[in-house]
Amino acid sequence: MLAMFCVRACSGLAGFRTVTRVRSVHSLPGITAAQIDEEVAKLLQLKARIGGDDGKHQFVLKTAKGTRDYNPKQMAIRERVFNTIIGCFKRHGAETIDTPVFELKETLTGKYGEDSKLIYDLKDQGGELLSLRYDLTVPFARYLAMNKITNIKRYHIAKVYRRDNPAMTRGRYREFYQCDFDIAGQYDGMIPDAECLKIVHEILSELDLGDFRIKVNDRRILDGMFAVCGVPDDKFRSICSTVDKLDKMPWEDVKKEMVNEKGLSEEAADRIGEYVSLQGGMDLAERLLQDQRMSRSKQACSGLSDIKLLFSYLQLFQVTDKVVFDLSLARGLDYYTGVIYEAVLTQAGVAPAPAEAQNGAPAEESVSVGSVAGGGRYDGLVGMFDPKGRKVPCVGVSIGIERIFSIMEHKAEASAEKVRTTEVQVMVASAQKNLLEEKLRLITELWDAGIKAEVMYKKNPKLLSQLQHCEESGIPLVAILGEQELKDEVVKLRIVATREEVDISRADLIAEIRKRTSEA
Amino acid sequence: MLAMFCVRACSGLAGFRTVTRVRSVHSLPGITAAQIDEEVAKLLQLKARIGGDDGKHQFVLKTAKGTRDYNPKQMAIRERVFNTIIGCFKRHGAETIDTPVFELKETLTGKYGEDSKLIYDLKDQGGELLSLRYDLTVPFARYLAMNKITNIKRYHIAKVYRRDNPAMTRGRYREFYQCDFDIAGQYDGMIPDAECLKIVHEILSELDLGDFRIKVNDRRILDGMFAVCGVPDDKFRSICSTVDKLDKMPWEDVKKEMVNEKGLSEEAADRIGEYVSLQGGMDLAERLLQDQRMSRSKQACSGLSDIKLLFSYLQLFQVTDKVVFDLSLARGLDYYTGVIYEAVLTQAGVAPAPAEAQNGAPAEESVSVGSVAGGGRYDGLVGMFDPKGRKVPCVGVSIGIERIFSIMEHKAEASAEKVRTTEVQVMVASAQKNLLEEKLRLITELWDAGIKAEVMYKKNPKLLSQLQHCEESGIPLVAILGEQELKDEVVKLRIVATREEVDISRADLIAEIRKRTSEA
Repeated sequence: MLAMFCVRACSGLAGFRTVTRVRSVHSLPGITAAQIDEEVAKLLQLKARIGGDDGKHQFVLKTAKGTRDYNPKQMAIRERVFNTIIGCFKRHGAETIDTPVFELKETLTGKYGEDSKLIYDLKDQGGELLSLRYDLTVPFARYLAMNKITNIKRYHIAKVYRRDNPAMTRGRYREFYQCDFDIAGQYDGMIPDAECLKIVHEILSELDLGDFRIKVNDRRILDGMFAVCGVPDDKFRSICSTVDKLDKMPWEDVKKEMVNEKGLSEEAADRIGEYVSLQGGMDLAERLLQDQRMSRSKQACSGLSDIKLLFSYLQLFQVTDKVVFDLSLARGLDYYTGVIYEAVLTQAGVAPAPAEAQNGAPAEESVSVGSVAGGGRYDGLVGMFDPKGRKVPCVGVSIGIERIFSIMEHKAEASAEKVRTTEVQVMVASAQKNLLEEKLRLITELWDAGIKAEVMYKKNPKLLSQLQHCEESGIPLVAILGEQELKDEVVKLRIVATREEVDISRADLIAEIRKRTSEA
Repeated sequence: MLAMFCVRACSGLAGFRTVTRVRSVHSLPGITAAQIDEEVAKLLQLKARIGGDDGKHQFVLKTAKGTRDYNPKQMAIRERVFNTIIGCFKRHGAETIDTPVFELKETLTGKYGEDSKLIYDLKDQGGELLSLRYDLTVPFARYLAMNKITNIKRYHIAKVYRRDNPAMTRGRYREFYQCDFDIAGQYDGMIPDAECLKIVHEILSELDLGDFRIKVNDRRILDGMFAVCGVPDDKFRSICSTVDKLDKMPWEDVKKEMVNEKGLSEEAADRIGEYVSLQGGMDLAERLLQDQRMSRSKQACSGLSDIKLLFSYLQLFQVTDKVVFDLSLARGLDYYTGVIYEAVLTQAGVAPAPAEAQNGAPAEESVSVGSVAGGGRYDGLVGMFDPKGRKVPCVGVSIGIERIFSIMEHKAEASAEKVRTTEVQVMVASAQKNLLEEKLRLITELWDAGIKAEVMYKKNPKLLSQLQHCEESGIPLVAILGEQELKDEVVKLRIVATREEVDISRADLIAEIRKRTSEA
């Protein structure tokens, strides 16, 4: 009987009426109140799913999972962050390019290893099979091969897409920005690599996000280390991805995974354990070049020599205070072939609150402040696209902007500072009624002179509401027209901060506004 | 027999070898040379599809159909255009927002009429059904309803996606930018509408694309006109879309479509024909308010009164020189409810060459210079998203940037002007060998002082190649280090344009570079 009510509700009955009917069967034999309560709860759930009381389908008003809108305040912060980053990229002489948001599906195939399952595909609506870009590096390599470009220094700021598990409070989204800077070309060793690190140093310093550290390692050192520690060739990748977890797991757990899950011998794991605990600078690279075991690997030695050379350039760039050679750094992506690096913020205080910690995520999460930039050398990727396999050596860095936005937003909220969302210099206002035409005449003069100006879209707004709008949106000046001012051919210029008012002749108004807002 | 060869080629045989085999059967009985030629042609086609001669699958190196990369030169032009447009939007006090590139599929459903078939859907990979945004207006309305915003003036510059027939030489792409400016809120009539037209006028004037005209009409005038001309209610939309073709077809053809295809009476069509040939300004609106037939429609009259009011504001904004009230303007989108407008360039000379004209497209195409901006009032769209149907009146304009990019690119190519793709102020160069370290020391000083500077990534580049790089990329200054300069604690500053060289003390170098590049 109750089940039947359910079916009827499903087939279109409005939830409210159904609930009433359920009440009316309360006295029927063989049905308990608890059963009815249960059915009512089900029906109410159903109602919530169906929508409003009018029974028609209600629209879900939301953005897609893992994505968000940016409101004007967030955009103002975003613009500030971009200006800093683009300013730095331009200071280093980079050009910029743009590529489409989707690529042929096969362009992305075989570039991301296991992560390929996170790629968004477009529906086959006839024509080509397309996927949303997963990063900016693969489209860049495709661009170089397609246009036969053998050297370029470019930046690219754009959104990328990953069907990952979103953690939006910590700045992890399915649609997010990447800010990439890459240097392609056959050059003398480690000069472009060092410049990438210099750029990370400049950007993180300028954004003022608190202290940070840039970890550096080299794929060849990792592979060499695995070889001399006795890791079988076919296990390099898999052991490497376990090492990559060292920033989230203690060594004991990492070792357990190596031995129990990946079948590595305990001795090999212990040898790796010794190496991956090492951190240092040029001195460490020198020491390892003398290390009996490590020096047996040619690959490791060329990696170590390059780390030495890299640090000598970093010294000239004056950034060694933040850079550390760290043998535990092992970035996931398949395409790296040489130096790799990752920047982390070390001041936990400025990081957004780790909301997941309460939801059963490991407690270590709250300690790890997460990477805000990463990159490395990928000398083989362009060759994968070139019909003749011609290689173009590349090195680059990607700034992870969403996490930085989160931090900046939290900072802005915490501080008393008001974020302006427009740049309006002056509001054209009126003291009396019926002055709309005069205001439009005046604002036309201002706009045509390049002054940023606003007027209310009302025929007769109150002066108070015009002034309030200025206070709220941080407009510094008000140009007030009244009968008297029109007669005298002046404008009353009000300085919002001080409430001071001065009469300025119409002829001088533009110059006066420019003078008073020139610092903006 | 030949068919069999085909099958074998399909199943993996390299095209080249297959062709050879086909030749070897040339003398077999019962097969003519012509047949063989035919099969060879098929096999060669197949080979081209399979790819290279090594038999392995060759990658198609291209961007998705209807999309393109922007190279650094195109990006420099794009940046300039955006700066002009954003500058204008900011001058008018707009904030900015951003929305995700995809929306829930149902957000877009029922908003675009027939054009809905052009929407890109994402593949169902589990989870929500998503589509790429088709314009920025519907996401804007969704944003307002979702955040219960009842008034805002915002701009949004982002890419939108349409599975349309691309015509890339004329700037019609499947992925393209829209630059939207919209005013939402309950305001006094026609003030925001007039500001939108002022903005189009400012932007097109500033971009210097040659002469233009902004056509204005009103949905209510169109509907009223159809009513008084005797169009049945259920044919308004369909007749409206035929009227929309008047910029591409002569009246005679439009009339034929109305009468023969859409079943309108000849008299009704002729009456429409009289109206849609009318163009004018405020005077025309006044005349039509007196028109015996037109004045019978209340709807038309309120549209005509608003056009009058609009023109009175446009006079104050000093833009009536370019704006024309044109009864033939009938924009396609369903959601417009009041004033509509469209800007067209009238100087055919600056338009990109209509490549399709040669490929069988109608010859009229080459006359029409196409719309570069359009918009109108849409008072009902936000209400479609609000759970309670609350309306937020909106009016806005969208600048069609791709066509403008095309024109600017053609102009840049035609002119002698060299488009710079970087902003580098100074190149740090060396006159002798083994000065890399000294150069890196100097460039660090420059970068840290905010100077845009470059150095070659070679240990010992030739001075000539360093100077050539400056010439090519428009770098105005070269800071040259040599043994003598290091000893004297000076830098030789070379002015690339004049080839003049002056010794500047290290202490004064930064100030000197700033002074010499301050106009940039």
